[in-house]
Amino acid sequence: MPTVPAYGAPSATEPLVPLTIERRETGPDDVLIAIRYAGICHSDIHLVRGDWGPVTYPQVVGHEIAGEVVEVGSSVTKFAVGDRVGVGCMVNSCRECENCLAGMENYCLKGNTQTYGSVDRDGTITQGGYSSHVVVDQDFVLRLPEEIPYEAAAPLLCAGITTYSPLAHWKTGPGKKVAVVGMGGLGHLAVKIAAAMGAEVTVLSQTLSKKEDGLRFGAADYYATSDPATFETLANRFDLILNTVSAPLDLNAYLRLLRLDGTMVNVGAPPQPLPITVFTLFGNRRSFAGSSIGSIAETQEMLDFCAQKGIAPETELIAADGINDAYERVLSSDVRYRFVIDASTFTAA
Amino acid sequence: MPTVPAYGAPSATEPLVPLTIERRETGPDDVLIAIRYAGICHSDIHLVRGDWGPVTYPQVVGHEIAGEVVEVGSSVTKFAVGDRVGVGCMVNSCRECENCLAGMENYCLKGNTQTYGSVDRDGTITQGGYSSHVVVDQDFVLRLPEEIPYEAAAPLLCAGITTYSPLAHWKTGPGKKVAVVGMGGLGHLAVKIAAAMGAEVTVLSQTLSKKEDGLRFGAADYYATSDPATFETLANRFDLILNTVSAPLDLNAYLRLLRLDGTMVNVGAPPQPLPITVFTLFGNRRSFAGSSIGSIAETQEMLDFCAQKGIAPETELIAADGINDAYERVLSSDVRYRFVIDASTFTAA
Repeated sequence: MPTVPAYGAPSATEPLVPLTIERRETGPDDVLIAIRYAGICHSDIHLVRGDWGPVTYPQVVGHEIAGEVVEVGSSVTKFAVGDRVGVGCMVNSCRECENCLAGMENYCLKGNTQTYGSVDRDGTITQGGYSSHVVVDQDFVLRLPEEIPYEAAAPLLCAGITTYSPLAHWKTGPGKKVAVVGMGGLGHLAVKIAAAMGAEVTVLSQTLSKKEDGLRFGAADYYATSDPATFETLANRFDLILNTVSAPLDLNAYLRLLRLDGTMVNVGAPPQPLPITVFTLFGNRRSFAGSSIGSIAETQEMLDFCAQKGIAPETELIAADGINDAYERVLSSDVRYRFVIDASTFTAA
Repeated sequence: MPTVPAYGAPSATEPLVPLTIERRETGPDDVLIAIRYAGICHSDIHLVRGDWGPVTYPQVVGHEIAGEVVEVGSSVTKFAVGDRVGVGCMVNSCRECENCLAGMENYCLKGNTQTYGSVDRDGTITQGGYSSHVVVDQDFVLRLPEEIPYEAAAPLLCAGITTYSPLAHWKTGPGKKVAVVGMGGLGHLAVKIAAAMGAEVTVLSQTLSKKEDGLRFGAADYYATSDPATFETLANRFDLILNTVSAPLDLNAYLRLLRLDGTMVNVGAPPQPLPITVFTLFGNRRSFAGSSIGSIAETQEMLDFCAQKGIAPETELIAADGINDAYERVLSSDVRYRFVIDASTFTAA
């Protein structure tokens, strides 16, 4: 089994350290990817610290992967050596359930195989993209449009698709009023994507500190949620509220901002149950929904859309030895707007 | 001001008693209706007992009204003396907000004027249908199809439209799997309507005691929610779950029964906030929504649909002096399936 340099967590409480991990041999349907850049997602931190359940350590995370194909298996038809490719949050699914058969692998009823921390088909635990190379089944590899540089592509594979999918599904477009809650890694891309789809976009952020950025990204309005007047002013306003915040919010306060048949969609993942008042949903026939990444086909559609519209995340480039500091800054919302790791800095431990 | 006999609550804790109440003079746009039958809705009990907030007593309730037009105002064009008509949960709205202008008076942003317990345009408190006569603006009066007897029409005006509206809005029809939670006044009509729309209907009730009825009303399946196996068997099954129960349920357990893009809609109104886990909504991109009665146009559509399909509620006829006993039986779910009061038994106090 090939070994490759990586950067991972020895335990829930220790900093990440250089590691050497094994990757499987490139199988008939596999693509071996030399990783160029890997994005840092808040989920990476939640997982390695055990916030979402028990973890088998050492664990390498990272599910925003952009790189180049350097080897293909004997049955691979979709990719060739030299292709520019990406890998997002999942690397396999059951391929048999009704959702998989409908091309919605992200909603696989048996649970898709996540890029890290999942049990793979061979019984090993998947290891993520903070690494020099990764082996992935061709059906879960995306093609990067030429217009998108590797560094910009990485965050699109999670933050991009996670916001694009609900925006597209709930028919964001001209004439629609969309609110984006949170101006972090996901939120700033949501603003760019929703504006490019033609909607009138409002940002709801704790403070106005990123207001200039929000307007530059395409928002028409920007409100501070720390100001109670915001919730009066914007009552019954939005067709769609996309909540990217993982902290528990007062859902009922946000739901009251929806107009007739409006939907609030959470892509943020607060672990605790949140209280919801049915009477708030009676008004305007409101809905509260969840959305989880996007299908492979939809991820390709998102990449092509971003290429066509010139959408790229705002990134800050770091080396492997900057990951632990970057985690602290993600936790204190001190990043504009996504850290991307230069994978050439993953060197043998 | 004309006075009419009625039956109402002197306080939150006393039984209902015979009363005499005032109705306004029949104005230019008004219709005076001689009530033939009035249904008993669980909401009537919640309101008179103060469960939903302060009440000005004495209060007459009842928002399932069927009767005959006996006088029309000078500007009335929609109805004539002798017409068979109905009145449901609302008797007016602001007529100016975007929802009213869209013909969705039930979602009036200023709050529609409810048939009882609301502040009317003249500042008085509206008094409901447990009475011999009522005066209502013609725009909030429904035309009863000839095929529907008065007694059967009454429960359609609340229980019927409250279930028809979400079933129609969420596109119930052939190929759709619909679950109805609760087999009471609303639930039994929901089963009949959803089956008539062509869906495959499953009843989820606490026990199997009403199973024969459920199958007779058109359900294909009937499961007891007291059996934990129900929630295993039916996982990822339904396109729509219509929850008619006002008691607090474990929402997450029911939400897990939704398949891809499924929605659970509450028409039951538990007063307390209910905990909802966002991760449950991530699976299958599920939604949780509320629905509140239906518009006037949609109520007419529902009446015409029920006439065409031969749908009628199962009723038990009582006299005015049986209302207090009926309330106790409603509270203990001992009614199959809707009490209807013979309005000829409302006599002067």
